[in-house]
Amino acid sequence: MSCRSLFINLAKIHGYCDIDPIFPQRNFFANIIIAILQVILMQKSLDDIDFEKSGGLIPIIVQDANTKDVLTLAYSNKESLELTKKTGNSWFWSRSRKKLWMKGEESGNTQKVIEILVDCDSDAVIYLVEPSGPACHTGEQVCFHNKLEK
Amino acid sequence: MSCRSLFINLAKIHGYCDIDPIFPQRNFFANIIIAILQVILMQKSLDDIDFEKSGGLIPIIVQDANTKDVLTLAYSNKESLELTKKTGNSWFWSRSRKKLWMKGEESGNTQKVIEILVDCDSDAVIYLVEPSGPACHTGEQVCFHNKLEK
Repeated sequence: MSCRSLFINLAKIHGYCDIDPIFPQRNFFANIIIAILQVILMQKSLDDIDFEKSGGLIPIIVQDANTKDVLTLAYSNKESLELTKKTGNSWFWSRSRKKLWMKGEESGNTQKVIEILVDCDSDAVIYLVEPSGPACHTGEQVCFHNKLEK
Repeated sequence: MSCRSLFINLAKIHGYCDIDPIFPQRNFFANIIIAILQVILMQKSLDDIDFEKSGGLIPIIVQDANTKDVLTLAYSNKESLELTKKTGNSWFWSRSRKKLWMKGEESGNTQKVIEILVDCDSDAVIYLVEPSGPACHTGEQVCFHNKLEK
């Protein structure tokens, strides 16, 4: 069990709402400490991201921050994730062109990145974005515009 | 330009709403044909999926069909995608355990797959699901519960 999971489970055992009727301060203070630890432990840094698992690249889910539509799946290396964080625009690594690229650098359909979320294994990321135009190179609003036949 | 993109662009040039004022039937019938072609071309089969680009596996975004929350990112090979399609439960390929697995086979937190969406390059997929419990092995509702520090 990771350090983070341990504290989350501790928080669950204590229970945020359960106040000890005999010594009410005990759970109250324990819960405050656990809440602070949770906030700290749920913040990830760039160094926490596991780029090595898939040869230096992680999958990036691009999701519209307002509509919650999934726009695109692309890939980032550490450098493009760093650029996204610094500039506030979505940057990726193109596997076909083998170069960094910023969404909208040619089309003008940039994506303003509002938040970056990291998954439990630190090997996949969501960019929550506000897009200024269609996400897909075909002109469609989202890349996932096809259905698998039933 | 792929066959599919060609027809989509043709549809855009014609415009679904623009009726020729001199010969109104022309665009009307052209649009009906294009609409039918679009529906056919936007249906993908298992054989259309490009598993080879990433060594036999494609990334699967699992999204809650009702809340639109992104629950998990996992991976599928052709067999697990086929099982998902056949059974209506979400199946994946575990890269760490090197075996097929069904979400919830141990925890009971299965996911009923309502729809499978395929992206423009046919190399990434969304399972739109109705989950019967938390998606994450940590007990969290979603796997993306961490934020990248700003």
